[in-house]
Amino acid sequence: AIRDAVEAHFGADAPLAGRRALVTSGPTHEPIDPVRYIANRASGRQGHAVAAALARLGADTTLVTGPTAEPDPAGVTVRHVESAREMLTACEAALPVDVAVCAAAVGDWRAAEEAAHKCKREGRDAWALELVQNPDILARLSQPGANRPPLVVGFAAETDAVVANARAKRARKGCDWIVANDVAPGTGTFGGAHNTVHLITGDDAEPEAWPRLAKTDVAERLAARIADSLGEGS
Amino acid sequence: AIRDAVEAHFGADAPLAGRRALVTSGPTHEPIDPVRYIANRASGRQGHAVAAALARLGADTTLVTGPTAEPDPAGVTVRHVESAREMLTACEAALPVDVAVCAAAVGDWRAAEEAAHKCKREGRDAWALELVQNPDILARLSQPGANRPPLVVGFAAETDAVVANARAKRARKGCDWIVANDVAPGTGTFGGAHNTVHLITGDDAEPEAWPRLAKTDVAERLAARIADSLGEGS
Repeated sequence: AIRDAVEAHFGADAPLAGRRALVTSGPTHEPIDPVRYIANRASGRQGHAVAAALARLGADTTLVTGPTAEPDPAGVTVRHVESAREMLTACEAALPVDVAVCAAAVGDWRAAEEAAHKCKREGRDAWALELVQNPDILARLSQPGANRPPLVVGFAAETDAVVANARAKRARKGCDWIVANDVAPGTGTFGGAHNTVHLITGDDAEPEAWPRLAKTDVAERLAARIADSLGEGS
Repeated sequence: AIRDAVEAHFGADAPLAGRRALVTSGPTHEPIDPVRYIANRASGRQGHAVAAALARLGADTTLVTGPTAEPDPAGVTVRHVESAREMLTACEAALPVDVAVCAAAVGDWRAAEEAAHKCKREGRDAWALELVQNPDILARLSQPGANRPPLVVGFAAETDAVVANARAKRARKGCDWIVANDVAPGTGTFGGAHNTVHLITGDDAEPEAWPRLAKTDVAERLAARIADSLGEGS
């Protein structure tokens, strides 16, 4: 129905008609034992909005999301996952795509071993919880190879030195663009309806400072930029 | 309005009229850094239902709850908290009460130090997250003293040996009653609408096995038992 409406609006000229998009969104939950897990404050609002905006421009869009209160966007294929490892598997299953937008706040760390039983507090005053690194989904999708999307966009949630940290992240992960957002306490970005971002599109490109916008408007602008970029390349 | 309706229904004879009740509910979120936290799968459904049931029997009820998707129950004073330490402070501020029902799944552990900045993954492959014990709210409320509620009821979320573990918990915490529920994976208790519980009211009392009930029905039965018990004592 969404695709019909897009085609009705754009005719055969929907900017992303015939394109495939993958978007990740939300937090991940990394289990410690049957009842406890490590989570983060991402709400999924931004990622879900990006998936909806790409679908509205005609892209065949898959959204891979961790647990959130956000409803599934209309016209988008949604895969629900909990952990980072499940998210990576679902992303790889969605390839090949023309653009991947990694907006999820993937937990960097998970418990080295998930306990089969609830860990009791008795018998120890302190506990050194052994954590190991999760797979780095943005870096994996950015790796050169036959399935590497032509455009990979990461999000960088930073609490300080936002642009500098985001530039370094772009280089380290190997992605093409980074959307840097300030999630410092007090900004209200995590869980809120607005976002203040910088878009970094290349080594030499000046970071573009976008004004404070509704997350839906950030999504629309980003989707339009993606359509422009893929249009140039075709 | 709720109290008016209660009085209209029971006249001056609302079973818990003139009584004060404290209920805890939900999970706690224990911060690791500005974006990450340790959580658990408690939904708050059972605790919120107990608070609503006590209020309907006429009790002046305070609900102290961690982050949940449950709406605030009507006719109940609700205090919203995140961490176990915040929950303890809010509980102590609600004393004195005639009955305290600790239905929250309080995180046993918190990070020894909350990082001021987001902890980066770079530079280490593993991370031993130092955890320390949180205050034990049920044990604190059960400690003898002038403010000790006449009736303290705990919940025990167990994944195995449910009754034996719950009996041991009752003795260890010093509470009067324990409601033992089975939260093993597959029971659907955490986050679900139903609960299968045992009520343990004393050292020598046989555990009462309640049938599988809606959490609202578990709450009604428990509130009625509390009203009977406080009625005997007055």
